[in-house]
Amino acid sequence: MNSADLGRRVGVPSTALFTDQYELTMVQAALKAGTAGRHSVFEAFTRRLPEGRRYGVVAGTGRVLDAVENFHFDDEMIGFLRQQDIVDEPTLEWLAGYRFSGDIWGYAEGEVYFPGSPILRVEGSFAECVLLETVILSILNHDSAIAAAASRMSAAAGGRRLIEMGARRTHELSAVASARAAYVGGFDATSDLAAGFRYGIPTVGTSAHAFTLLHDTERDAFRAQVDSLGRGTTLLVDTYDVTEAVRAAVEIAGPELGAVRIDSGDLLLVAHRVRQQLDELGATGTKIVVTSDLDEYAIASLAAAPVDAYGVGTQLVTGSGHPTCSMVYKLVARAGGTADGDADAPLVPVAKKSMGAKSSVGGRKWAARRVDEGGVAEAEVIGTGAVPEELVGRELLVELVRGGVVVAREPLEAARERHVVARGVLPMSAMQLSRGEPVIGTEYV
Amino acid sequence: MNSADLGRRVGVPSTALFTDQYELTMVQAALKAGTAGRHSVFEAFTRRLPEGRRYGVVAGTGRVLDAVENFHFDDEMIGFLRQQDIVDEPTLEWLAGYRFSGDIWGYAEGEVYFPGSPILRVEGSFAECVLLETVILSILNHDSAIAAAASRMSAAAGGRRLIEMGARRTHELSAVASARAAYVGGFDATSDLAAGFRYGIPTVGTSAHAFTLLHDTERDAFRAQVDSLGRGTTLLVDTYDVTEAVRAAVEIAGPELGAVRIDSGDLLLVAHRVRQQLDELGATGTKIVVTSDLDEYAIASLAAAPVDAYGVGTQLVTGSGHPTCSMVYKLVARAGGTADGDADAPLVPVAKKSMGAKSSVGGRKWAARRVDEGGVAEAEVIGTGAVPEELVGRELLVELVRGGVVVAREPLEAARERHVVARGVLPMSAMQLSRGEPVIGTEYV
Repeated sequence: MNSADLGRRVGVPSTALFTDQYELTMVQAALKAGTAGRHSVFEAFTRRLPEGRRYGVVAGTGRVLDAVENFHFDDEMIGFLRQQDIVDEPTLEWLAGYRFSGDIWGYAEGEVYFPGSPILRVEGSFAECVLLETVILSILNHDSAIAAAASRMSAAAGGRRLIEMGARRTHELSAVASARAAYVGGFDATSDLAAGFRYGIPTVGTSAHAFTLLHDTERDAFRAQVDSLGRGTTLLVDTYDVTEAVRAAVEIAGPELGAVRIDSGDLLLVAHRVRQQLDELGATGTKIVVTSDLDEYAIASLAAAPVDAYGVGTQLVTGSGHPTCSMVYKLVARAGGTADGDADAPLVPVAKKSMGAKSSVGGRKWAARRVDEGGVAEAEVIGTGAVPEELVGRELLVELVRGGVVVAREPLEAARERHVVARGVLPMSAMQLSRGEPVIGTEYV
Repeated sequence: MNSADLGRRVGVPSTALFTDQYELTMVQAALKAGTAGRHSVFEAFTRRLPEGRRYGVVAGTGRVLDAVENFHFDDEMIGFLRQQDIVDEPTLEWLAGYRFSGDIWGYAEGEVYFPGSPILRVEGSFAECVLLETVILSILNHDSAIAAAASRMSAAAGGRRLIEMGARRTHELSAVASARAAYVGGFDATSDLAAGFRYGIPTVGTSAHAFTLLHDTERDAFRAQVDSLGRGTTLLVDTYDVTEAVRAAVEIAGPELGAVRIDSGDLLLVAHRVRQQLDELGATGTKIVVTSDLDEYAIASLAAAPVDAYGVGTQLVTGSGHPTCSMVYKLVARAGGTADGDADAPLVPVAKKSMGAKSSVGGRKWAARRVDEGGVAEAEVIGTGAVPEELVGRELLVELVRGGVVVAREPLEAARERHVVARGVLPMSAMQLSRGEPVIGTEYV
């Protein structure tokens, strides 16, 4: 299965230049020194969660697979690198033939993670692996940040419908990735058409204040909308006076009116009033959508309000205070001194000396989530040796790429469902919105 | 001049689906109601600056022009909209023929802005203007947030070199736009190759810790790097022991060593020690680059340190605490009731009632920056009538698109230079990093 089966194919440009220059200059120097082919293991992980967060959410894995597949240097790119004198001719020649041929394992998309979790492990020659650093981190750092915010919001919404509508608040392509990550994290739909086109996420939307203002009266606008979009549409009722608007809305659309949207004011109070008014007008099936600068705290505070759906923009696409994770991509092991290019050579664990021991253990790692007798997660266990018997079958890394070939494509729905399961196994305190420590500890064995 | 002259052309996909669904459903309803052709004026502005900020920086204007030019629905997009039943056949037909044919005026890129500044004004039929809302806001909200952070950092750096290296901390295409916005805001170079390719921004980079760890000793790594990249390269000296590394670096590269990079520790202290050691070793021309979680405050705190260049990542690409602006795109005037499609019909100013009077004045606006006798800015003056005589020649909106044709392309360098001039006219307190009110007030006349 390739990405074309899981959404509409888009002309994905090569991802090869979404790369920091130093990845290429390191390849040049290593090629010359004869060390470029040393078998190497890189791992992506984070040393800490954003302050106060109880768990992280892995998102972007599917996009990483696309990025690895599309990572190649075409003639125009090689011409650019030559013209700018960024690397030398032998390196350009090597780059022109570049295709990742190594192996990638990682946490499945939608999984939760904790400090130290080896979210992605990339293995191959030094040169082929180091080149992928920047784009892999871009994707994981962005998408996981959005998914983590989405997960908190979906926990706060307690089953009510969540609509992602933040496209206008972030870069136009971040927006598409944000809608995707939000879907993984528990959102139900997006306003972003490109996200519907690319990833098959359900899209929604009816009208804005401009539509009301375009018409001579609010009633004209409502009539125009109902005429065209049907009685099941959502009418925006806060352009002028909400009570007046709700009366007009039901008069024009009848009690079959799909929904009203409230985008300003004290949402708790207004939602109660509007619900009462709708019921009195017989529109008992008409839903209420609220959409005004919501975050997980505002959503939670509306738990007692008669609200059927939340539209969330800014706070979602900016990660609700944490717009990026702090994932890094580190060389953790490589072939010994004389074993250039020999994949069977013994690996030497490596680590930057200045880091704390716990947070940067060298060596190729496994990870497993230990659960108590009630099935509740109690620790993220990470090690470099053999997996202890009691953790066999609980390993978190799955095979994603084998010998350069993607082997783990899946529909986005699978990641979304996996997240619900993974979050459900965490201790209840994971769902608290208040600041706290990671809900389980990380143990190195 | 088109964008191809100002950087390498890239296969820019159509921007038409970077759009919230409701823009299309509004078009459908307005087409049916006969109001879609009403001549309309939309303005993009912000009601407030991010908390504590003294000024905003307009960035992304050039990207907006690209987006408007590339906004068209191809067969596959139309097929998607049909299959998902998002709009009806008459609307699909209208969309298939869509090209923006109206006018756009706006603040020139690199200008500063304040609450209420009409940063962009889009004028044409309701339908053709409303469609552009989402992508215009995506670009302006993202790029201006990054440029504002960059501007503060460049003020703090006081002429020292600034390198953008945040690609790995944000979406891979946000990263490219961030490098562009950072350049407008005063940065000198980027690590992001795609930003060099697309926008001609100077790119830099040499090596990471992984390169040192790949080799059997730090000396082997330094030798390999100097052999390949020359003595002018930048060696990373904090993988193991900084003093030892600096000694080895100068021993291997000689006093012609280009620079050393320090990526951890107490940068103020370490920079002083490294400078002293370099000088003692005769490497008096070797520069010091620092790159560890810097923001404008850290940069300012290093003013007394012997640092030659700052590399900034996370805090730049996340807008240093404010990853998005709060720009909105509002219908401010439209043709009167009977004047559907008549561009000469008198315009009616419109505004959502629930907004404060000052922050959403209806009507097509001009803006000018009033200066005192010393040439220092003292107010952002905004009005809807004739421009007062004393402000003629000080208007801030320039023509960008005329009848659908882009008329104001410029090299990125022009925006970068304009920002220096615009910021230079502000009162000195604009440069304070501490929180405060907008450095000049907004007056409506």
